[in-house]
Amino acid sequence: MSPSLEFYDKTAQDLPIKPVTAKALGVPGVSAIELEDSNKHDLVLKYFRAFIADLCEQFKGGHPGSAMGMAAIGVALYKYTMKFSPKNGNYFNRDRFVLSNGHACLWQYLFMHLVGVESMTVEQLKSYHSSRYDSICPGHPEIENDGVEVTTGPLGQGVANAVGLAMATKHLAATYNRDGHDLVNNMTYVMIGDACLQEGVGLEAVSLAGHWKLNNLCIIYDNNNITCDGTADVANSEDMNAKMRATGFNVVDVLDGHSNVSSIVHALLAAKSSEQPTFINIRTVIGFGSLKAGLASTHGAALGTDDIANLKKSFGLNPEEHYKLPSEIYEFFQDVAPRGLQLEAEWRGKLDAYRQAHPELAAEFELRVAGKFPADWRQFIPKKENFPKEFTATRKSAGLVGNPLGENLSNFLVGTADLTPSCNVAYPKKVDFQSPNLRTACGLNGDYTGRYIHYGIREHAMCAISNGLAAFNKGTFLPVTSSFFMFYLYAAPAVRMGALQGLQQIHIATHDSIGTGEDGPTHQPIALAALYRAMPNLLYMRPCDSEEVAGAFEVAIDATETPSIISLSRQTLPQYPQSSREGFAKGAYVFFEEEDFDVTLIGVGSEMVFAMETKDLLKKEHGIKARVISFPCPRLFEQQTKEYKQSVLKSRAGKPAVVIEAYAANGWERYADASFSMRRFGKSLPSKTAYKYFGFEPSVMAPKIKDLVEEVKRDGIEILRGDFRDLNGSLGVKFEH
Amino acid sequence: MSPSLEFYDKTAQDLPIKPVTAKALGVPGVSAIELEDSNKHDLVLKYFRAFIADLCEQFKGGHPGSAMGMAAIGVALYKYTMKFSPKNGNYFNRDRFVLSNGHACLWQYLFMHLVGVESMTVEQLKSYHSSRYDSICPGHPEIENDGVEVTTGPLGQGVANAVGLAMATKHLAATYNRDGHDLVNNMTYVMIGDACLQEGVGLEAVSLAGHWKLNNLCIIYDNNNITCDGTADVANSEDMNAKMRATGFNVVDVLDGHSNVSSIVHALLAAKSSEQPTFINIRTVIGFGSLKAGLASTHGAALGTDDIANLKKSFGLNPEEHYKLPSEIYEFFQDVAPRGLQLEAEWRGKLDAYRQAHPELAAEFELRVAGKFPADWRQFIPKKENFPKEFTATRKSAGLVGNPLGENLSNFLVGTADLTPSCNVAYPKKVDFQSPNLRTACGLNGDYTGRYIHYGIREHAMCAISNGLAAFNKGTFLPVTSSFFMFYLYAAPAVRMGALQGLQQIHIATHDSIGTGEDGPTHQPIALAALYRAMPNLLYMRPCDSEEVAGAFEVAIDATETPSIISLSRQTLPQYPQSSREGFAKGAYVFFEEEDFDVTLIGVGSEMVFAMETKDLLKKEHGIKARVISFPCPRLFEQQTKEYKQSVLKSRAGKPAVVIEAYAANGWERYADASFSMRRFGKSLPSKTAYKYFGFEPSVMAPKIKDLVEEVKRDGIEILRGDFRDLNGSLGVKFEH
Repeated sequence: MSPSLEFYDKTAQDLPIKPVTAKALGVPGVSAIELEDSNKHDLVLKYFRAFIADLCEQFKGGHPGSAMGMAAIGVALYKYTMKFSPKNGNYFNRDRFVLSNGHACLWQYLFMHLVGVESMTVEQLKSYHSSRYDSICPGHPEIENDGVEVTTGPLGQGVANAVGLAMATKHLAATYNRDGHDLVNNMTYVMIGDACLQEGVGLEAVSLAGHWKLNNLCIIYDNNNITCDGTADVANSEDMNAKMRATGFNVVDVLDGHSNVSSIVHALLAAKSSEQPTFINIRTVIGFGSLKAGLASTHGAALGTDDIANLKKSFGLNPEEHYKLPSEIYEFFQDVAPRGLQLEAEWRGKLDAYRQAHPELAAEFELRVAGKFPADWRQFIPKKENFPKEFTATRKSAGLVGNPLGENLSNFLVGTADLTPSCNVAYPKKVDFQSPNLRTACGLNGDYTGRYIHYGIREHAMCAISNGLAAFNKGTFLPVTSSFFMFYLYAAPAVRMGALQGLQQIHIATHDSIGTGEDGPTHQPIALAALYRAMPNLLYMRPCDSEEVAGAFEVAIDATETPSIISLSRQTLPQYPQSSREGFAKGAYVFFEEEDFDVTLIGVGSEMVFAMETKDLLKKEHGIKARVISFPCPRLFEQQTKEYKQSVLKSRAGKPAVVIEAYAANGWERYADASFSMRRFGKSLPSKTAYKYFGFEPSVMAPKIKDLVEEVKRDGIEILRGDFRDLNGSLGVKFEH
Repeated sequence: MSPSLEFYDKTAQDLPIKPVTAKALGVPGVSAIELEDSNKHDLVLKYFRAFIADLCEQFKGGHPGSAMGMAAIGVALYKYTMKFSPKNGNYFNRDRFVLSNGHACLWQYLFMHLVGVESMTVEQLKSYHSSRYDSICPGHPEIENDGVEVTTGPLGQGVANAVGLAMATKHLAATYNRDGHDLVNNMTYVMIGDACLQEGVGLEAVSLAGHWKLNNLCIIYDNNNITCDGTADVANSEDMNAKMRATGFNVVDVLDGHSNVSSIVHALLAAKSSEQPTFINIRTVIGFGSLKAGLASTHGAALGTDDIANLKKSFGLNPEEHYKLPSEIYEFFQDVAPRGLQLEAEWRGKLDAYRQAHPELAAEFELRVAGKFPADWRQFIPKKENFPKEFTATRKSAGLVGNPLGENLSNFLVGTADLTPSCNVAYPKKVDFQSPNLRTACGLNGDYTGRYIHYGIREHAMCAISNGLAAFNKGTFLPVTSSFFMFYLYAAPAVRMGALQGLQQIHIATHDSIGTGEDGPTHQPIALAALYRAMPNLLYMRPCDSEEVAGAFEVAIDATETPSIISLSRQTLPQYPQSSREGFAKGAYVFFEEEDFDVTLIGVGSEMVFAMETKDLLKKEHGIKARVISFPCPRLFEQQTKEYKQSVLKSRAGKPAVVIEAYAANGWERYADASFSMRRFGKSLPSKTAYKYFGFEPSVMAPKIKDLVEEVKRDGIEILRGDFRDLNGSLGVKFEH
């Protein structure tokens, strides 16, 4: 019988592994006797909860309820179960822990303090909700701080991040572990509240965890049945255990999660020996000890001095004492840090032995532990002369550039939200990341060494999981995702979290314009680029041909603390002799220069073709001299020198500049005086007809530009100040607004 | 035994209702004999599939596979089960049908043609994928066209829309039906493919459907086990039936969905008598009849002429004939249109009787059927003099304005993503929309007459369901949603679909800035406004005080074809004597005028306070005269006359304009030369400290503005051309990009 069946639908008390031995725990120095000492647990829990209440009271704010409710879970994890080293948050083979219900962060901060994380002093704990700029106790956990694997807060994200972290372990283990060399074998634990499995991104992620049989993943559900609006049953009636079983999880129930540490430890042990990912459903009481225990009012507000005094009295503590952590509490946790050092030493020993036995593999592995990119990656990017000369869709160009990287670089984990045939990211001889036991009906199997990931139709989880992969010892992986650009709107909350955390990734976003054609307005992005161009620490790049695609990949790989979106056409596009990856890297460069010009045209990515054709027509038909800028990435351009910027823009020459892009013009006003752009949603038409419908046609654009040039010649450039011209704005306004 | 238990886990063949009678079907004029005539069905299915193949072949594109696979389901629905009127797509009590797998739209278009929807001619069918501007057969179904309830395409959305449509029926029935007057009782059917229950939004929505026990909802799962990447098991291993049961659905299996129409009809009947929502899991074969049947290659590409010829031969049809629909096919469906007229007549009769019996209710009901807003709504909006004079958070102001509307207007359906205590949208004496049998642990119960909706922590489903509510006979409902502004990024794909479809809604987005404070960067929006300001047909409005909040509600209610986001502060804000709802409605207006000014400051919403304070300080400390514009909505401002715009901007005066907003500046370049804005993510600090940290402090801003004014006086305004100044841009750049 498999462990999953054995534990299936049992409560933790019924689990077969008892008494708990040091061996079963798998962490050195923990004996069964200590675990059974429930008096000590009670004392720890009391002081822990009172301390949380005090911290929130200091500035009359914060989230005390769940941090107090989850106290016993923390003892089970930090004292007994998790393999980690408080003195070294970067110990490579540590168990990963994600607090997906990030608002409960005080819980994590206080346990970090108790187990001896040096940066986490009492003074720092008291900086929670303070005005201190150097606080490491922000309102939600942040990746920059010691002991935090990923930044959490937006609910559901952490579950998906944890799936990514667990995948990372599975992949590294399958790739580098050898007989007798169990180098990578950590668990990933993720705490969740009621919200994380209400949020779609969490539900998408658990489906994948079940599919991939990530038995190194353990979801710990702080089931306090409380959300902001009341009891969780106000908005949920599911049989959560049955749902998780249907999703492929081993399910364990813990009925008393507020005091029974032993029960929780048993459940965590069950997770370690499961063949499936494990879902531990732990009943807790929010705000345990408060007079408002079990109520939503303990969730997001301090309890108040009276309630806290009462809590301390009922716990047998002194209500006059605040921030009290007596020496017994520290003593209780004092073995955790030395144990961590021992784990580290053991692992270094393992690594030494591995280096002896498998020197080549070890060299590659150590490069990845160091988070370093393979040095010779540029050799895999085609030179300009090797690209096809004929019209080529940039989604195809991205395959020409990206696939050799995917094939040859072991840190690339390339995935798609079910768009393998459209996004061209499947490299030759790819192996799929799959459970080795999977046998699909179509014969597309794989194993955990695989670096090609079928995420299913789950764009949001794809990018949130990708954040987890990128956060696993930053630099060990460079995740690549792919979908239609439009559906990066589904993924936007996760893309944003990647940018916020400085997690390098490459998002391959194809079908990036109305040129997508017949799929129509639902699939044609108009406003999305405005979001990603405004988003801090993100590179949204729109290359116009294969050479610029090469530039985009180079920029993306060099940006080690920044995710990139490479925005690509479905339709074929001309290839330009003057396009340049070096120019691309500057964000904008002169594409066609013209002495004594009348107007500057800004060409962008999939619509560059219209700028170049209109430039020709302006000269031929109207005698107007237009220069053209290729402007794939304003963010990169803004980092250039003032001199470079003026050399490209020539904005002081008093000549108008016109941007041509089939998106909302928002943001281009910084560089242009007028636009051919989109003020309404697209239309289901073949690619060329769709552009034509909205006025993107040289024969339509040239006369309008001519009129603008003449107006400026007559009345001066200052007439355009505060009067940005939407030159095709009158077309097809479907609604009033 | 409840029907749900009776049907639970049975296949359709085992269902107790047979033979099928006209009464059981609930549609007039259908006899059991007709249903059993499988020869006729076979003929219809053959010609139907061949016609779909021909349509895709015409322009060598489109999605033939699922449209062909689902043919028998369409016969069961359009011929036997759905109550609708082909001659009148607006028949009020029609069963609603949503094609959530919208790429299969040819299936719907062809059935609409066969049942006699007049606009859907063969010529129109042939316009699929053509260059015709007037096609009503776009690549995905669009709400503007007859017989289409909602625009679909982005996967998962349709499921949530259908939940909204089913809620609408439940609510209207509970509110207006009376004994003997069963005025509203339609079913909602939604077709889905494999993707719709992989996407998070779909999963969120079904959780709510189960919770609310929407037994008038039937999800029809086209289970062809194929997605773009291969068989669905490449990315999914769930027991979908078990999962749906755990979610509260009645589950029925149909094992032969490609030819056994009777079996599908039985399953659909089971749905009609269930006490829960129903999930019909129908096994079909994608591209049935093609040599590539059952393969992903039939999904998104034409089959090719050889394959189609072979298909026709194997069906016993003439391979030389294209677009062939012999008269037997039309005859088979010829009873559907008259039946629809009969349904309409019956309903009109019911309405007459209702008008007699319940004249007052009938008057209200008919107003709603007409999609008309109650005429006297403005009386419920407080006058300026009745707002509090002290500092007030605009989220509180929104409660003052919105709650009387929610309380008094029967078309308001007000909801929240579990943020009732924060968003202030709960009006006095609210009744929750809940299953009448629900008994929550916290005592917060309700019934279907309720107009307050607890969506749980499901922002995406909230807005997608809201689209369904708004699309139910446009104007019958005005859905209101609420959450933190940041989490409208989770909901963005649904907000966009609302804008695309012209579905009036009001999204109450609180905690809209870094002023949110301690929750930190994960909760502080920076780039999101750029998305919504760029999005076509959406009003993103940022009022600065209670009076402007009143203006925002007035604009939102007047915008009958446009959704609105009202963006509100968590923190308290000053109330201004000069603020004006009339000015607000113009998008921007002069807030503080100054003769012979030196600089224009643009103040926006939650950060207006900084513009006004800096204006004072500039005069007092630096002798610089600043005028101030309140600029809550660029979209509204762009609709004003050129003269009005120049009177507000005074941009021709050669004086610089500076915008002050704690968002990315993108887009403000249209009106300003410089900004105090955000170029990185926020920080966990108390509200005021957070602003201070990023330089939003009058004493910091005033000297920088003074420098700018002096530079312009010295060197002329033209120096700012192409050189937008990010005046606090150097602060705290955390990452390179």
